Amino acid sequence: MDADADASHMRRAVELSLRSLGETSPNPNVGCVLVGPGGDVVGEGRTAPAGGPHAEVSALAEAGELARGATAYVTLEPCDHTGRTGPCTQALIAAGVARVVVAVRDPNPVAAGGAQTLRQAGIHVDEGVESEEAHDAMRGWLTAVGRGTPYVIWKFAATLDGRSAAADGTSKWITSPEARADVHRIRAGVDAIIAGIGTVLADDPQLTVRTPEGPAARQPLRVVVEGGSRTPPAAKILDGSAPTFVAAAPEGGRVDLHGMLRHLYDQGVRTALLEGGPTLAGAFLADGLVDRVVAYLAPKLLGAGPAALGAAGISTIAEALTLDVVDLAVIGPDVRLTATVKGA
Amino acid sequence: MDADADASHMRRAVELSLRSLGETSPNPNVGCVLVGPGGDVVGEGRTAPAGGPHAEVSALAEAGELARGATAYVTLEPCDHTGRTGPCTQALIAAGVARVVVAVRDPNPVAAGGAQTLRQAGIHVDEGVESEEAHDAMRGWLTAVGRGTPYVIWKFAATLDGRSAAADGTSKWITSPEARADVHRIRAGVDAIIAGIGTVLADDPQLTVRTPEGPAARQPLRVVVEGGSRTPPAAKILDGSAPTFVAAAPEGGRVDLHGMLRHLYDQGVRTALLEGGPTLAGAFLADGLVDRVVAYLAPKLLGAGPAALGAAGISTIAEALTLDVVDLAVIGPDVRLTATVKGA
Repeated sequence: MDADADASHMRRAVELSLRSLGETSPNPNVGCVLVGPGGDVVGEGRTAPAGGPHAEVSALAEAGELARGATAYVTLEPCDHTGRTGPCTQALIAAGVARVVVAVRDPNPVAAGGAQTLRQAGIHVDEGVESEEAHDAMRGWLTAVGRGTPYVIWKFAATLDGRSAAADGTSKWITSPEARADVHRIRAGVDAIIAGIGTVLADDPQLTVRTPEGPAARQPLRVVVEGGSRTPPAAKILDGSAPTFVAAAPEGGRVDLHGMLRHLYDQGVRTALLEGGPTLAGAFLADGLVDRVVAYLAPKLLGAGPAALGAAGISTIAEALTLDVVDLAVIGPDVRLTATVKGA
Repeated sequence: MDADADASHMRRAVELSLRSLGETSPNPNVGCVLVGPGGDVVGEGRTAPAGGPHAEVSALAEAGELARGATAYVTLEPCDHTGRTGPCTQALIAAGVARVVVAVRDPNPVAAGGAQTLRQAGIHVDEGVESEEAHDAMRGWLTAVGRGTPYVIWKFAATLDGRSAAADGTSKWITSPEARADVHRIRAGVDAIIAGIGTVLADDPQLTVRTPEGPAARQPLRVVVEGGSRTPPAAKILDGSAPTFVAAAPEGGRVDLHGMLRHLYDQGVRTALLEGGPTLAGAFLADGLVDRVVAYLAPKLLGAGPAALGAAGISTIAEALTLDVVDLAVIGPDVRLTATVKGA
């Protein structure tokens, strides 16, 4: 057991897992590397879209007979239950794997217990290798499964002075083509994109994943939060290019956002991108439903115009919602700041 | 003439010049390195506070007889006039310097012509070595002298959603102690700190340079822009701990900001830090009087409260004031974004 080699193989497994990000819900994006007794990589796998093989099964298929006596590096504890596929524990035992190294334990009570089953079958199991990296790669799924509501990322674009549009309402485009392309990359990694009726009426967004080559094959669920107004039948969000869910408020009331998120979770949504506008973002933040904030800041000044964030129930500085900056990047002429909500 | 050695010595001269930043106005912050025929550094100097020796004179004093036949690396063309000190050109000639390498030509018509005088005395002069670095180090002075008004840096602190205070007016402290210490570092590098009467009445700031050891020895001029209201005699800005200039508007009018800046320039101010508030910053931006923006962004969200920037005469997105991000830094938990105003 070489700790450096273990860490290095697990980092490769994490790399593989990231390639499946956004494709696997309701399953986690897992990566697996199989290493033979001589130290050679004999198989690699990552979770296929839901219903397809798990990472371990793909890696075992690639290794064939070479899996016998091998060590399996898996970013998440192998599942021990039969869902749309059989339990990975049984596949690892049947293939004659000698050792399994796990980064993160499965928090899902239905699927957990894999490590114990493997040990009972005489397989040596080590846990906690590169667990931070693996946790980062599966953060959305792990958070969602741990509480039963999707991991919510709030994305906004604003000028350096916090405006999302000019005084006359014009906003196309505050940020650069590079920043807008980056948003499509983030959309591609989530299961749902949420917008408020205000944004639908004002901007008529399509809310699909588009690349320079055209629309992506897999499209997240589009979610409109309707307050009093109704989504016009001609709205692009109802254009059929991706599934759309309209969360309508009861007569005279407002949408129960937490209830809506629970419903989305039940539909298999593990990560969601909240794309505004300011009113809906304020409501999500006031209800403590945002996990991560991605701010695209254009180096522009307006001095007037609507703010990027509306009322979030905060009236004094001591109550300000405090975030932790986890990443800062220059995207074209703009700046992208990524932060996590403390305690979320 | 070794281009690598030339560049390396000039970078050292630039380094020296930066140590004098903020201490030399109305003179530029210049650095000088003297290198003997054998390649050894025989003297170094940087501009002393106004009235004291220029960089070249300090370096020559350090070198003594070793200056004979040496090469002088100077970040700015040596002055050719007698101000409070004699012309540097004559000092270089008298010391027997063989070659002078200049980074940036002097834009000041009164002091310029130094290169020509040196050449006429038989000294070899090379220009344009590491000129970009030297220009950066003297940017404020060069810009100010080129147009007759100080180089203006607008500094503001805001939440990620562009608020400078909460809805109830509380704002202490939006940014961290680290960010506030960084502001004192910037204050130490300028000749004047400008605030509006609104900020004076609301926050009663002292606007002095303070370090963990106490107030700095040299204090920039404090400038209050009075609209209609008068600065209260008990305001900290009038506490005598630094000189203060009150720019008062004519009866019923507003302060002519451009005229005020010309007056400050005549008083020797080459760089000024505008510290708000939102109304004064908007007026400066509307008048095209800001050269550089330093934004301290706290990773906090408020969703309500006054905006960091007030009306700047911009009503539609196409008119947004566009900046170039030149630096991005993490300061404690906060982010500092530095940008230059395009065309300024």
